[in-house]
Amino acid sequence: MKKILITGISGFVGGHFVHLLSSRHNNLEIHGISRSKPAWDFINTPAELLNGHYFHQADLNDIPKIKLLIEEIQPDYILHLAAQSSVAESWKSPVFSFMNNTNIFLNIIDTVRLNDNAARVLSIGSSEQYGIVSEKDLPITEERPQCPENPYAVARVAQEHLARIYAKGYDLDICCTRSFNHCGPGQTDRFVVSAIVKQFVMVARGIQKPVIHIGNGMIVRDFVDVHDVIEAYYLLLTKGLKGEVYNICSGQGRAIQDIVTLLSKMLCIRVDILQEQSQIRPIDNPRIVGSYQKIQRDLGWKPSIPFEESLMSMYQYWDKRIKDESKMHSGVTS
Amino acid sequence: MKKILITGISGFVGGHFVHLLSSRHNNLEIHGISRSKPAWDFINTPAELLNGHYFHQADLNDIPKIKLLIEEIQPDYILHLAAQSSVAESWKSPVFSFMNNTNIFLNIIDTVRLNDNAARVLSIGSSEQYGIVSEKDLPITEERPQCPENPYAVARVAQEHLARIYAKGYDLDICCTRSFNHCGPGQTDRFVVSAIVKQFVMVARGIQKPVIHIGNGMIVRDFVDVHDVIEAYYLLLTKGLKGEVYNICSGQGRAIQDIVTLLSKMLCIRVDILQEQSQIRPIDNPRIVGSYQKIQRDLGWKPSIPFEESLMSMYQYWDKRIKDESKMHSGVTS
Repeated sequence: MKKILITGISGFVGGHFVHLLSSRHNNLEIHGISRSKPAWDFINTPAELLNGHYFHQADLNDIPKIKLLIEEIQPDYILHLAAQSSVAESWKSPVFSFMNNTNIFLNIIDTVRLNDNAARVLSIGSSEQYGIVSEKDLPITEERPQCPENPYAVARVAQEHLARIYAKGYDLDICCTRSFNHCGPGQTDRFVVSAIVKQFVMVARGIQKPVIHIGNGMIVRDFVDVHDVIEAYYLLLTKGLKGEVYNICSGQGRAIQDIVTLLSKMLCIRVDILQEQSQIRPIDNPRIVGSYQKIQRDLGWKPSIPFEESLMSMYQYWDKRIKDESKMHSGVTS
Repeated sequence: MKKILITGISGFVGGHFVHLLSSRHNNLEIHGISRSKPAWDFINTPAELLNGHYFHQADLNDIPKIKLLIEEIQPDYILHLAAQSSVAESWKSPVFSFMNNTNIFLNIIDTVRLNDNAARVLSIGSSEQYGIVSEKDLPITEERPQCPENPYAVARVAQEHLARIYAKGYDLDICCTRSFNHCGPGQTDRFVVSAIVKQFVMVARGIQKPVIHIGNGMIVRDFVDVHDVIEAYYLLLTKGLKGEVYNICSGQGRAIQDIVTLLSKMLCIRVDILQEQSQIRPIDNPRIVGSYQKIQRDLGWKPSIPFEESLMSMYQYWDKRIKDESKMHSGVTS
């Protein structure tokens, strides 16, 4: 039986990916590493999914422990999802962001190298690596030079350079992504679309006034549904070309304030938009839109879930969650 | 009295820089940080030089200690020399190399940021950041895209990106170098020219057979004398433009084996060359030659010391050192 090690298994993408693996019945033994246990409230049957799978509580900065785990597990695949993936957080705590992006990745691949482990590694990167790209160069292809404009992006660029050098210099079997903004049920409200959808639920439930708080509403991002993202990760893990880098994106740009307008129309809820100065970042990329031509050409992947569908599943997620939380707070147990 | 903090003060460049500051009589209070105390055997009067100056023994990975030191010192200038600057070492221990290049730099600048310290910071980078550059693009100017080809180079690229983002996003007063290979008296024999010169001394003294051991003799590097380097650092610290990056180089490329031939002629010592496979790196840049046009234009700096003169001062350094060591070993004390 082949083994897969998933770092950051407890996170948003980790939960969805485990769900995907289970549905494929591919007989993979799943090992997960994370600092905290999974709490996937967006998946119905976490206990059942974890049957026969192994969860290892560990900090990826703890090199001796990681070394021991990888030696024990001897994984055939490593999906490295663990990251501190918030740009906003990286401006607040660059040192923490760097440790929990570049350093943890280096700890993993260096352990694989020293261990002569033949695992196929999928390194997750970010569209933030590109930095500020002029309108005429959109959609962004993988050939575009990288010019990171925030601490998180620097950490991701360094991670990818290390991946490339480990593939080329030490012959490790690593493949890389540059994943664009995700959305989908289960994402925390530290991320913009999830934060907006959550606010709409609160407005609909009368918990919040009809004012949606956002940062810079003009910035344009390319949002891809997490279900599409995990399909791409599965394909890349099993068939991605060694040493290559692939964009994972929807190919469509959306301004943040347009998302508010779209939700307002879809839900027939009139809202005002409040742009909060405190949420505006020292440097921000005005427009990020990707091209998925390369992964489509090499592996046949393309995004399949319409943005409106993503929004609705996120709405249902937040609606259920807020309902459950308010029940708990009001003492109603069933 | 203004204060300068020099990280990695105990190293090769640190010693030469302290010597330069002393000769300038500019009344700077010098604070040095290093893991180990200075042992500058290439400077005649270390004790005198250190009079009135402060040495702080600390590991730059120890964030609380660094924070305390910078808060206490409140430096006006920070010359960040501390680094694990050997490419060969970085292939052996990439994790260590990364921690002792990118992470320590980030620790310093993040402390400066959190402390609202207005220090002018000089971040030292490397020509290795450019990676493999084709013949037609030589000499390399600062505009060339960076494509690091070894773990050390990745760490330096990340360091410079962080410097740029801290200058732009947090308004820190940082200026950067991309320093090409150094040479000069006091450099350890982990670096190629110093290793070659040392071997010639050993051949001349009959300690070694007339065979000079090198790695890849064909690679071309641009060697600049440490005395020229420190003049450039002094200029950049005091007058370099914020957020800018400057090459520091000789503008001349030399193949490693040609250096052996040149020394052989200068010293009239016939030697054979042995290229050791074990010293050849997983990936190596065939040719690195820089352009110093930008720093010459902005600050009037250009290299002034002929390579032959550098070689002779290195020869004298190694000759004295080996003589002193052999005296010690043979029990002769004066």
